[in-house]
Amino acid sequence: MNKQTNIDKLHKESTVNINGKITKGHEAKISIFDRGFLYGDSIYEVTFSQNGNLIFFDEHLERLFKSADFINLEMFITKDYIVEQTLLTLKQSKIPNAYVRIIVTRGETEISLDPNISFQNNLIIIVKPKPIHNPLYYTRGLNLYISTVQRNDTKATNPSAKSGNYLNNVMAIADAKKSGADDAIMVNKDGYITEGTTFNIWMIKEKQIITPPVSSGLLKGITRDKIITIAKKNALNIVQRPLTPDELLSADEVFISSSTKGIMPVNQINSVKYADQRLETNNLIKLYNQFLTEHISQSDKNYLE
Amino acid sequence: MNKQTNIDKLHKESTVNINGKITKGHEAKISIFDRGFLYGDSIYEVTFSQNGNLIFFDEHLERLFKSADFINLEMFITKDYIVEQTLLTLKQSKIPNAYVRIIVTRGETEISLDPNISFQNNLIIIVKPKPIHNPLYYTRGLNLYISTVQRNDTKATNPSAKSGNYLNNVMAIADAKKSGADDAIMVNKDGYITEGTTFNIWMIKEKQIITPPVSSGLLKGITRDKIITIAKKNALNIVQRPLTPDELLSADEVFISSSTKGIMPVNQINSVKYADQRLETNNLIKLYNQFLTEHISQSDKNYLE
Repeated sequence: MNKQTNIDKLHKESTVNINGKITKGHEAKISIFDRGFLYGDSIYEVTFSQNGNLIFFDEHLERLFKSADFINLEMFITKDYIVEQTLLTLKQSKIPNAYVRIIVTRGETEISLDPNISFQNNLIIIVKPKPIHNPLYYTRGLNLYISTVQRNDTKATNPSAKSGNYLNNVMAIADAKKSGADDAIMVNKDGYITEGTTFNIWMIKEKQIITPPVSSGLLKGITRDKIITIAKKNALNIVQRPLTPDELLSADEVFISSSTKGIMPVNQINSVKYADQRLETNNLIKLYNQFLTEHISQSDKNYLE
Repeated sequence: MNKQTNIDKLHKESTVNINGKITKGHEAKISIFDRGFLYGDSIYEVTFSQNGNLIFFDEHLERLFKSADFINLEMFITKDYIVEQTLLTLKQSKIPNAYVRIIVTRGETEISLDPNISFQNNLIIIVKPKPIHNPLYYTRGLNLYISTVQRNDTKATNPSAKSGNYLNNVMAIADAKKSGADDAIMVNKDGYITEGTTFNIWMIKEKQIITPPVSSGLLKGITRDKIITIAKKNALNIVQRPLTPDELLSADEVFISSSTKGIMPVNQINSVKYADQRLETNNLIKLYNQFLTEHISQSDKNYLE
């Protein structure tokens, strides 16, 4: 499929809600004066639905408001309004297994960086069929590359805020692709591992599960939180501590986590290939899938009913 | 004037060119799938015109293409096309003294960070009357604040690329406003002065003119370049070297430079007030204005003729 065909497909398959008005993708437009467009002055969340059930939606909304706090983006809309509009959009899309992206911008203002002049938000909800990830990423595993592009520092543009400033990650993935890898891992200014471009990173060494702490400069993943909960509930040995690239490269197993990808094994980082036997990773995938099934069975927000 | 009135005025006063189609501001809309909107994956330039003459337009276009190089944003449009469309928009606007913002995004793609899937740009040219800066900023001078928000690092999101990732600067100006100042200066991770949120910074000590080098992590300003040229031509003592906040606070005079603001004196940084007598700054303002007049007299691109 060529690139324009992919966009046409995206336009056709997507249902978009802009400030309460629902349209098809090709009509979904925003003012070029919107601060999200001019400065990346926005926050967002991505989640998905399964058979009409939104996954960990409360947690995503909570983090959306935390991102707003991080960048002092005043929310002129309520959580309830976002829930209502998201469910309305999903219902209208009729997609049972959907990708859901919620964007809140600091709205339209005069052309000025000063955020104090903001007095409204633009709320954009994108709903489209959940993309199917390359099955190779689950079987063979991901090939990753430790990018030379450093992660934004917590004191500059804090990665804990899921904002519209994603050029840092765009640059890192470009770097990884150039090296032939599927995606990138980024280090902070002190050389410690932070996260991938759109996922958290984990390693297993002598049965201990290790992931970098938020203080290393990363987004506190919802799936990351769930894995920690699951591991503790199952009395697994889990720890958050700063990780060097060398430690990561000498791990027994490595995997990544993300809301849309779930848990994916890592096959290779740079030129280091990990063992094909992934006892601990496979065990966590099993436990996570059980947890997800349980979550869905308890859901009271099926938008198809 | 209330905030909505300001936006209505902006819509009414502005003429916007999107990929060759010229509209009024209120109709200027872009797809929410544009990478500029989703990731701040764009570059831009701001210049202005005086009596129908674009100021240092070649230099701005050159820097636009340099920003593209910095973030590996492939340009599918030529410099000539941008010139043609900018002049067309200005002509149609009939504004003799205009603010001109040129934005080039990595276009619309599938929802994926990978920039390699980009195959087109979106070109947006915004033309509106040149805003009149608070006259107090030229008479009293600016009150600035050294922000606790650090400047993005050159190894993460390089400030030398004028991109759509401006949250770092938005946060810094918010910080400055909270302290009662007009605007912010930012330091790098090593504690050295970089630049203001939308301007370069300069100090004078014992008649020596000092500004931080690009390696401190800043945008290579067009006006900054011109001041260096002018100073050298006039045998003034000028040097680029890393500056600490302490040095800046102990300066004899401080001023800022930007394309739209020109040279503005600084009245105060944090709690330090500078002397009202600004011999060197005033001399540079005089020389810069002469240089600007000369540039305009040599212009061959008057769009009103």
